Amino acid sequence: MDQPLEPVCVFSQRAQQLTSSAIREILKVTERPEVISFAGGLPAPSGFPVEVVRAAFDKVLADNGRAALQYGPTEGYAPLRKWVAEDLNRAGAKVTPDQILIVSGSQQALDLLGKVLIDEGSKVLVEDPSYLGALQSFSLYQPKFVPVATDEGGLIPEAITPELAAGARFLYALPNFQNPTGRTLTLERRKALVQRAAQLGLPIVEDDPYGELRYAGEPQPGLLALASEYGANVIRLGTFSKVLAPGLRLGYIAAHRSIIDKLVQAKQATDLHTPTLTQMAVYEAVKDGFLEEHLPTVREIYRVQGRCMLDALAQELPDTVKWTVPEGGMFLWVTLPEHIDSTKLLAQAIEHNVAFVPGKPFYAGKPQTNTLRLSFVTVPEDKIRSGIAILGKLIKQYV
Amino acid sequence: MDQPLEPVCVFSQRAQQLTSSAIREILKVTERPEVISFAGGLPAPSGFPVEVVRAAFDKVLADNGRAALQYGPTEGYAPLRKWVAEDLNRAGAKVTPDQILIVSGSQQALDLLGKVLIDEGSKVLVEDPSYLGALQSFSLYQPKFVPVATDEGGLIPEAITPELAAGARFLYALPNFQNPTGRTLTLERRKALVQRAAQLGLPIVEDDPYGELRYAGEPQPGLLALASEYGANVIRLGTFSKVLAPGLRLGYIAAHRSIIDKLVQAKQATDLHTPTLTQMAVYEAVKDGFLEEHLPTVREIYRVQGRCMLDALAQELPDTVKWTVPEGGMFLWVTLPEHIDSTKLLAQAIEHNVAFVPGKPFYAGKPQTNTLRLSFVTVPEDKIRSGIAILGKLIKQYV
Repeated sequence: MDQPLEPVCVFSQRAQQLTSSAIREILKVTERPEVISFAGGLPAPSGFPVEVVRAAFDKVLADNGRAALQYGPTEGYAPLRKWVAEDLNRAGAKVTPDQILIVSGSQQALDLLGKVLIDEGSKVLVEDPSYLGALQSFSLYQPKFVPVATDEGGLIPEAITPELAAGARFLYALPNFQNPTGRTLTLERRKALVQRAAQLGLPIVEDDPYGELRYAGEPQPGLLALASEYGANVIRLGTFSKVLAPGLRLGYIAAHRSIIDKLVQAKQATDLHTPTLTQMAVYEAVKDGFLEEHLPTVREIYRVQGRCMLDALAQELPDTVKWTVPEGGMFLWVTLPEHIDSTKLLAQAIEHNVAFVPGKPFYAGKPQTNTLRLSFVTVPEDKIRSGIAILGKLIKQYV
Repeated sequence: MDQPLEPVCVFSQRAQQLTSSAIREILKVTERPEVISFAGGLPAPSGFPVEVVRAAFDKVLADNGRAALQYGPTEGYAPLRKWVAEDLNRAGAKVTPDQILIVSGSQQALDLLGKVLIDEGSKVLVEDPSYLGALQSFSLYQPKFVPVATDEGGLIPEAITPELAAGARFLYALPNFQNPTGRTLTLERRKALVQRAAQLGLPIVEDDPYGELRYAGEPQPGLLALASEYGANVIRLGTFSKVLAPGLRLGYIAAHRSIIDKLVQAKQATDLHTPTLTQMAVYEAVKDGFLEEHLPTVREIYRVQGRCMLDALAQELPDTVKWTVPEGGMFLWVTLPEHIDSTKLLAQAIEHNVAFVPGKPFYAGKPQTNTLRLSFVTVPEDKIRSGIAILGKLIKQYV
């Protein structure tokens, strides 16, 4: 096109603040096959039930092709909404199918929540550190992030003071195997959090993409399951990305009807609805209990590779380095001695063909620049060992 | 859930303006099987190539299942981006694959454009009347709509004065078989429009969901194809909804690289990417020229039903009623004598089990309340005839 190279549109204020981060640029090199990348947030493709998904798409198109290819209701495919509600209720929640909105992956849930709950300058409470994709998504609606203190046990409920919560639109929290830290809230903290939120009139957005990927410790009730007991307002986000496959882009929001109604209106203006065929095929795949037989396979892949990384860390890293021991999910969180900047370490690691994500961008508050996130799920065991060995050598230079 | 029935969240200003329209409530009755609905915007499912889509999904999952189910790049599946660029270039455009962003249906394109181009109070020029879904989507970003006058020939380029265009973020236009009017811009007006936009530095968003559904008259070059000749900045939206199937939710944006880059950043925060499997399957379905053999079938369905409706209108409606004669697409636009309010007519029509969409909500400027939109593509011919006969009788009461 014979158009000038400079921008030819006036971009909105929110768009002007969107920039391609330096880290994203560095991480582009992780696509090179020789790079051992602990940076990714991708689930292990070896855990994708390809043949089950294939059979489900085929059955839906064979039996119900025209309906599967037609526009559908914004709320989602009714049998799938019912399935999700029943699934949540088996885990202790009390929701009806009309409290479920099917969305195009959890990321869209975050965007829709930003759309309907955030005005410019609205206070939004976030765990510090928190999921980078949520910070980016909410940022488009220009909130004022208020970090909530965390410790080894994750979010500290007592840190949510009335002053901190005053006027906040919601608290965003990941209670299970948090991204980026891998930490899990104890039952005690869950109860304290939900009770406090109820007292303060603070809605909680509970994001739980990894909850089904627990491979150690005891399952804990979700915040939504605890909500009715304490009268709290919990909006829960779930996804099929980690239990089935992320490329399908399928997730859900469970919330009070008044919130779902507003989200439905926003979703209609945003993308009309989530693809009908995908919803029908996923329903077909999961309706007869497939996940119960499939999830142990996924959990076992993650458990073994997580174990492998923990062993390698213990063997290769100096005593002054600490890391979390996740009970599930895909990530663990490394804290280096304070004087080591993980962004600088990344630049060195890349030269040695190893990648990770430095901790800094996960912080809404003052960043701890000596932290980093490691994912263990897409790297084979021998590469986990050699990659961690390289990191160990680089870190030892500093100590 | 033991939650109160009243809203338990503070909604954003943009969410507060979202309301379920009275018309939408009325139109819920169109789901009753006894209702003859000319209100829908749904393509005819008889035109969906179910078996081709089924074979494409099956082949992709058989050959490349794990890749198809994994996360993918935000920009879209590279071979599909290339296919779209080549398809546009065959129609006279000059674009490269990196100027294509794959989106989850055109509606998402509208949302992303709103995100990156509209600030609160930004001027956005729209044809009057225009596509309701676009008005709703842009509204979430709180622009100031500026209506551009139209006549029987559609948008009037001379109506875009320097004063009207000053500071506007873009003009939104549908040059082919416009929704809601069914009108098509002549070549002369297209050239005048693109030239004027170039002179005024006014970006044009060209939305062309129906362009391939022409069944009468001569194809006209798209605005993007005319853009480079005049140095205009045209952002083109296209979709597979009307040529393949809408339930797949697949569309694209073609634009200058600087705009695509910004849209990619916004899309990443919005839903990460459009489903990988869907993109791969659609590419598989269309890559060897399938649309060229398939589209004549769809066009013929639409032509025959459009003809049937035009004949019925001529037979049943009084002389004082006017309507457009579309050269393609799904809709025609009826103008009643000025004293007839089509919203009131709808209430009567519903009682007689006939539905349509009154013209009022399509206007950003002063509405012509004596207009209405009829869709002819999902109603069988005998029902088109009986439905239009009922409308004719109701209208005759007023004249």
